[in-house]
Amino acid sequence: MMDNLDDDRRVVPKEEKEFLSADGTHIISRPLINSDSLPFWLFHPCLFLPSPSQRSYAIRAKMDYTYAPGRNHLFVPGPVNIPDQVLRAMNRNNEDYRSPAVPALTKILLEDVKKIFKTTSGTPFLIPTTGTGAWESALTNTLSPGDRIVSFVIGQFSLLWVDQQQRLGFNVDVVESEWGAGANLEVLASKLAADTAHTIKAVCIVHNETATGVTNNLASVRKILDHYQHPALFLVDGVSSICALDFRMDEWGVDVALTGSQKALSLPTGMGIVCASPKAIEASQTAKSLRVFFDWKDYLKFYKMGTYWPYTPSIQLLYGLKAALDLIFEEGLDNVIARHNRLGTATRLAVEAWGLKNCTQKEEWFSDTVTAVVVPPYIDSSEIVRRGWKRYNLSLGLGLNKVAGKVFRIGHLGHVNDLQLLGCLAGVEMVLKDVGYPVKLGSGVAAACAYLQNNIPMIPSRI
Amino acid sequence: MMDNLDDDRRVVPKEEKEFLSADGTHIISRPLINSDSLPFWLFHPCLFLPSPSQRSYAIRAKMDYTYAPGRNHLFVPGPVNIPDQVLRAMNRNNEDYRSPAVPALTKILLEDVKKIFKTTSGTPFLIPTTGTGAWESALTNTLSPGDRIVSFVIGQFSLLWVDQQQRLGFNVDVVESEWGAGANLEVLASKLAADTAHTIKAVCIVHNETATGVTNNLASVRKILDHYQHPALFLVDGVSSICALDFRMDEWGVDVALTGSQKALSLPTGMGIVCASPKAIEASQTAKSLRVFFDWKDYLKFYKMGTYWPYTPSIQLLYGLKAALDLIFEEGLDNVIARHNRLGTATRLAVEAWGLKNCTQKEEWFSDTVTAVVVPPYIDSSEIVRRGWKRYNLSLGLGLNKVAGKVFRIGHLGHVNDLQLLGCLAGVEMVLKDVGYPVKLGSGVAAACAYLQNNIPMIPSRI
Amino acid sequence: MMDNLDDDRRVVPKEEKEFLSADGTHIISRPLINSDSLPFWLFHPCLFLPSPSQRSYAIRAKMDYTYAPGRNHLFVPGPVNIPDQVLRAMNRNNEDYRSPAVPALTKILLEDVKKIFKTTSGTPFLIPTTGTGAWESALTNTLSPGDRIVSFVIGQFSLLWVDQQQRLGFNVDVVESEWGAGANLEVLASKLAADTAHTIKAVCIVHNETATGVTNNLASVRKILDHYQHPALFLVDGVSSICALDFRMDEWGVDVALTGSQKALSLPTGMGIVCASPKAIEASQTAKSLRVFFDWKDYLKFYKMGTYWPYTPSIQLLYGLKAALDLIFEEGLDNVIARHNRLGTATRLAVEAWGLKNCTQKEEWFSDTVTAVVVPPYIDSSEIVRRGWKRYNLSLGLGLNKVAGKVFRIGHLGHVNDLQLLGCLAGVEMVLKDVGYPVKLGSGVAAACAYLQNNIPMIPSRI
Amino acid sequence: MMDNLDDDRRVVPKEEKEFLSADGTHIISRPLINSDSLPFWLFHPCLFLPSPSQRSYAIRAKMDYTYAPGRNHLFVPGPVNIPDQVLRAMNRNNEDYRSPAVPALTKILLEDVKKIFKTTSGTPFLIPTTGTGAWESALTNTLSPGDRIVSFVIGQFSLLWVDQQQRLGFNVDVVESEWGAGANLEVLASKLAADTAHTIKAVCIVHNETATGVTNNLASVRKILDHYQHPALFLVDGVSSICALDFRMDEWGVDVALTGSQKALSLPTGMGIVCASPKAIEASQTAKSLRVFFDWKDYLKFYKMGTYWPYTPSIQLLYGLKAALDLIFEEGLDNVIARHNRLGTATRLAVEAWGLKNCTQKEEWFSDTVTAVVVPPYIDSSEIVRRGWKRYNLSLGLGLNKVAGKVFRIGHLGHVNDLQLLGCLAGVEMVLKDVGYPVKLGSGVAAACAYLQNNIPMIPSRI
Repeated sequence: MMDNLDDDRRVVPKEEKEFLSADGTHIISRPLINSDSLPFWLFHPCLFLPSPSQRSYAIRAKMDYTYAPGRNHLFVPGPVNIPDQVLRAMNRNNEDYRSPAVPALTKILLEDVKKIFKTTSGTPFLIPTTGTGAWESALTNTLSPGDRIVSFVIGQFSLLWVDQQQRLGFNVDVVESEWGAGANLEVLASKLAADTAHTIKAVCIVHNETATGVTNNLASVRKILDHYQHPALFLVDGVSSICALDFRMDEWGVDVALTGSQKALSLPTGMGIVCASPKAIEASQTAKSLRVFFDWKDYLKFYKMGTYWPYTPSIQLLYGLKAALDLIFEEGLDNVIARHNRLGTATRLAVEAWGLKNCTQKEEWFSDTVTAVVVPPYIDSSEIVRRGWKRYNLSLGLGLNKVAGKVFRIGHLGHVNDLQLLGCLAGVEMVLKDVGYPVKLGSGVAAACAYLQNNIPMIPSRI
Repeated sequence: MMDNLDDDRRVVPKEEKEFLSADGTHIISRPLINSDSLPFWLFHPCLFLPSPSQRSYAIRAKMDYTYAPGRNHLFVPGPVNIPDQVLRAMNRNNEDYRSPAVPALTKILLEDVKKIFKTTSGTPFLIPTTGTGAWESALTNTLSPGDRIVSFVIGQFSLLWVDQQQRLGFNVDVVESEWGAGANLEVLASKLAADTAHTIKAVCIVHNETATGVTNNLASVRKILDHYQHPALFLVDGVSSICALDFRMDEWGVDVALTGSQKALSLPTGMGIVCASPKAIEASQTAKSLRVFFDWKDYLKFYKMGTYWPYTPSIQLLYGLKAALDLIFEEGLDNVIARHNRLGTATRLAVEAWGLKNCTQKEEWFSDTVTAVVVPPYIDSSEIVRRGWKRYNLSLGLGLNKVAGKVFRIGHLGHVNDLQLLGCLAGVEMVLKDVGYPVKLGSGVAAACAYLQNNIPMIPSRI
Repeated sequence: MMDNLDDDRRVVPKEEKEFLSADGTHIISRPLINSDSLPFWLFHPCLFLPSPSQRSYAIRAKMDYTYAPGRNHLFVPGPVNIPDQVLRAMNRNNEDYRSPAVPALTKILLEDVKKIFKTTSGTPFLIPTTGTGAWESALTNTLSPGDRIVSFVIGQFSLLWVDQQQRLGFNVDVVESEWGAGANLEVLASKLAADTAHTIKAVCIVHNETATGVTNNLASVRKILDHYQHPALFLVDGVSSICALDFRMDEWGVDVALTGSQKALSLPTGMGIVCASPKAIEASQTAKSLRVFFDWKDYLKFYKMGTYWPYTPSIQLLYGLKAALDLIFEEGLDNVIARHNRLGTATRLAVEAWGLKNCTQKEEWFSDTVTAVVVPPYIDSSEIVRRGWKRYNLSLGLGLNKVAGKVFRIGHLGHVNDLQLLGCLAGVEMVLKDVGYPVKLGSGVAAACAYLQNNIPMIPSRI
Repeated sequence: MMDNLDDDRRVVPKEEKEFLSADGTHIISRPLINSDSLPFWLFHPCLFLPSPSQRSYAIRAKMDYTYAPGRNHLFVPGPVNIPDQVLRAMNRNNEDYRSPAVPALTKILLEDVKKIFKTTSGTPFLIPTTGTGAWESALTNTLSPGDRIVSFVIGQFSLLWVDQQQRLGFNVDVVESEWGAGANLEVLASKLAADTAHTIKAVCIVHNETATGVTNNLASVRKILDHYQHPALFLVDGVSSICALDFRMDEWGVDVALTGSQKALSLPTGMGIVCASPKAIEASQTAKSLRVFFDWKDYLKFYKMGTYWPYTPSIQLLYGLKAALDLIFEEGLDNVIARHNRLGTATRLAVEAWGLKNCTQKEEWFSDTVTAVVVPPYIDSSEIVRRGWKRYNLSLGLGLNKVAGKVFRIGHLGHVNDLQLLGCLAGVEMVLKDVGYPVKLGSGVAAACAYLQNNIPMIPSRI
């Protein structure tokens, strides 16, 4: 019933037929790897590998390795479903990015993209990179090696950012919470209180921890900074929040905010979107971290010239971003945020109906973009993910690092609607039954529907 | 609560807000039009029109008139969801259809397409037309004006075919059944028994009546023909059956079978696929119905030359058909048929759990590609369809003609899977609640899941 | 140097290497088939078949049978190059065509499409068929079997239309011209003069004969009809003219005009666009030709209801048509026509510079959408087409029927510009050299450039 | 006749009508900016901005700002034309990159991509970045701050790389050549000879300088290194060479080679492809440059686990790369290289026929991917680029920095063929005439055709 890990770390699936009868007996399964005895990076989602026969199949079938009838239910917390309008906009040949057309498009994009950050004073950068690169852009442009920063670890992605901060040579005060809890802002307050000399140069925080489904309270961070009149920069990872959760760059005095194109913007991966406050821009003029590719100065020079690009952008992603923003503005950013709240609420109601626990410890931290569901100790959550993909064409998120084997994740962000989520929830129920959890089939869907039927608005363009 | 029909026959939606509270009181609604007092064609789905405000919206927004976040759940019984692989294959420029490439592709297609008819002796034609044109191709190539034929009316589409047969000048013995019942084969038997002079030239039957979800028993038709050793041609509309239901052209001695690209093949509309037995080909040499565009002779001449096309085909549909057939063969035609049976069964179980009636009167006629659900008399089924589209981004099929206002239809054919269906069923439940039917939310999904969780196979490429 | 025709009519290419040295000696080649001794349909472009090795290659490589680096220069007179904007618009899933969205779109299309016919009083039909079907729609809706009509044969396509007219049971007065000449309007005048009893019910004429590159003078036809106050219907095949040549339905009193989507509209094949005058609509109410699929009455009923479609349209082609029309209107229809005149003129100047003859006998008949180039008697024009495709990734049109082997055709219609044409002309020059014609390389391009450099306007959106 | 530069550096087009008569008189025009008095980055292509009216047009028309009928002739040296097969492969939704499918695909890609470097021992990295990021990856993974390196400046791109090297803190021995000449390898030899202490840690060289069309001789670099038995790393920018020019990583002992997806691979921008020799991998274990996003170590850890990705890749670019490599392998890498040589030769013959000079000073440095054409002093080469785009829908490359205003560039790399190039050359001729250069129209095309007609092979799949 469980996969074995063979010596070159591949996961070899065992006989699957037992599952098909699904007699309801409790199936004992265990986490594949003891997460305490190995380095953290090993637990970045590494448990889910093709078997040798799958690999040869892939070689034969090439482009259609994953073929299964019907549409994949993609419910990982990124990359997410791309709207057809965006796919169409991106279905195009390359263009000369030095013609007047590309700067004209870029100019519009730089104005439009500010709206998703709720900023008027910020300066956005559309960097050909991923979220990891966007992190690096935020840090290296505003800080110098040795600078003291406060940073929170509450799950795998905040952990990875701290790892990056340390490797880039900053002096990081790491504030850890239990995984499932939010950032410990009391510790922040005491550190700021003590730092009358203003040795802390920046506070770094992940708005929404994608590994545990925890949303931090950014307004409180700003309140604390203001309370102590502390000049530290306020750097925010908004990768799984911006365009989905309430985010207010100007109001909350965020100095650098960033996201990745493949998250709530619902684009392919490849564009790191970073927005810098005037204070951050000022800091970038003296920051001593070495950087070239990520250097904002090059962008700013080309902005001034009106050609915008220090190196070649992806033409397709620019047009795709235009289409993605147009859809968001057509729906209305606040309606988009409300939709995410609705989907998050429905998911949480389903989890409750299943009798399972949300990894997020308190309601104040509930995330509307991703829900990490805790499974009973006799079940390996990786098996749930594997089975969803292998039997139901359902893509769920693995548990990572400390919660590997203990949680699975439902991503409900980006271009997704209620009926898609309900299909996913029905699929999760069947998977739970498959792996031996005594779920009452239909229970989660019923709970979600009861809420949704009272809360879904009419589609404005169709009334 | 109900739409009014204004004087130019547009449907004007009334205030929708009442629905949002959904307090569960029974909402009285009536069929918009009395279906007995008006000609049948009026009831071909005409109840569902844009309001004036929608039309001006359409003019403004042009390409994105229907925009709503997330993916439309397309559950009309055609046109159906197109696989991404097919969209990709069709995303191409035109080509010279007289180059060697197009005939080479066509040759492969003509061989491959025979497999979906389960024929080795048949001759297929890929005609740039719709199902209606494919009907005309079948009739005019095999029959002469005045020929006597037996044809069955069991719903709107068989009715439309009979209408075509009459307008084309054939002498049609119409055998009617109640809508919801299958073709009356006893009447066929008695007609054939009486026809010792063999004045009946053809028996025309719809394999699956899309308006009522009724599947006729073609093997029995063949048995009756054989029993009376009657030489009549056996012409079959397989529009909503072929590639989804069990169909055996050679074994059942079908003389012409036909389908449309937008049905179970999951392509765009635009290709009528007609397959003729040797006996039908022979009949076409003497049939006197006037025809040019639909004339098989022109095709056969070009087949002989190896250039295949008497006029320009759609390059995109040819490549699309190749991709669609490849997917069907990769899944396995019998697995495709089994999947449709599974989806049909799950849908019927949900309908039962909702306490609603299937329009199909007996189990032997249950259709695995479309389910027509009868609503209580106090509900207008058109309202269900309208609401699905307007609130849940769910596309269901209207009731047509005699069953207008009385049934709505769930199409479960083509490139669709279990989780998509479950999303649709959850949506139907919320719609039912919206229009005042006292459904227990989650009940249909639960019934479907209980069956599906025991019956969905592992995805072969992923084991 | 020449291909042999083996016994099953395949063309077997002989050793090609001799061509590569291209020493300029005259290569003797002959038409492959004597066009006088065989039925006309055999010469509909049948000379260009895959060799056995190509066919097995096709089976292996499937989708990429025609692969060659770079873009195919598609210069057949249809199907033509599709704009990327149209490909994007068509890259979409199916939709419920009974939702309000599709009628709303259709309503816009039916208004917009009238502009390309230059009509305000006409009624357009967007029929899921090809040009051949559009012909049939025009004839069967307006005429009754036995009706006398006058029709002109001036090349292969007018011949095929006459063939259709005869097979549909009309009594056709065929007026033949030499291939390369226009319709003999003097004969028309004398026939109308003699027909005081008005037994002639329709005059059928091809605006632009695609096989010979001859444009008929439609204004003169109207003048003659008016001169004799003759009430005959005026039916026009505008397949290779509408959207490219000057065409004025209302001003010229055309009763039915038609085109196909894959021609100057630059869409895929699959939509026959037919426009009927009020007089034609009136005729359709009494015309006795049997028809169902092509029957305008069904369309008109659905137009009245506002649902527009008697059967399923291609969703993709509707959105594609919207995009295609938008591009035409953005460029300006008169600018589109001027561009075709410019490209036609440039092509003719190149032909002259090569020392070759235009198949079109007089300047008044010159076609701005297709040029048929006469080759010297010692060259087989099919070899030119074959070689263009096999060596230069250039698609040219074959000579058909009477001019098979004698002409090749350059289509310069639809979404194409000057530099694309110049690439084609350069390719033709190299092909001519390949097959032994003593062309001065660069001569045609030079002549075309000299004209174009004085006549290409600035691109309005880029000034 | 010339554009003015208004005070905020926008280019304001003057009245264009004078050009249309093109009477052949010499038009005096001057470089817009004196390239000596301003910093180099200003001359990175900044001269080509939208006018205010264009910008408002862009806002109105949004996606179709550049609309012009027909296909853009894209002849900048990157980004280049994307094959339709690649566009199709990329036209897809996101996928869970932690499912077995993406690692299986990645594994194949990492094997296949080695072939374009001609390496068996190298380790490739597919980094979500541009060429500039690939440079940074090569440098920071193998070197430590303060390391002495030798680097050559022969044009704008080698200059930008040197700029990066200096900003990253390396101690750069810059070896300059005149722009138009190749790298001065004699200086390299003397530096290596003198460096018996092996203080030089790396030799950095651009294989093909895109700004001047100069190809350096990498085999000679290796020979010199070997001659002095010098252990310096050999780092090569192959951005505009790999997949187009002869490149042999293993044979030439290159330690790091890199390219960008948007160059000869003919993909969209967004993937930096870096390949490291075992020696480079070894160096990366001790190199002290700070790096996280670009750190090979993270990749290598995930390679070992078999999940491959330390952060989210672009699903679309992975499938696109598969399609691009398949096309290259189908054509044959050596045939691809031969095609580039043929296109380069044809371009150079045209330039000669026009009486213009190649910026490249000696035949040994001629580039087969880009040709920089020197214009007479009375012409501003930027005007040529501007006019190509504004009148002929032709995209050419600007002259950069020292050669701004003095050269324009024709990129002939990637998925492009002979007829496309000939269309471009014809366009250049008309542009030259437009701006007052007394070119003989057709002369360049004639020279190119004379060569090409003797050298283009038959298309293998079509023989």
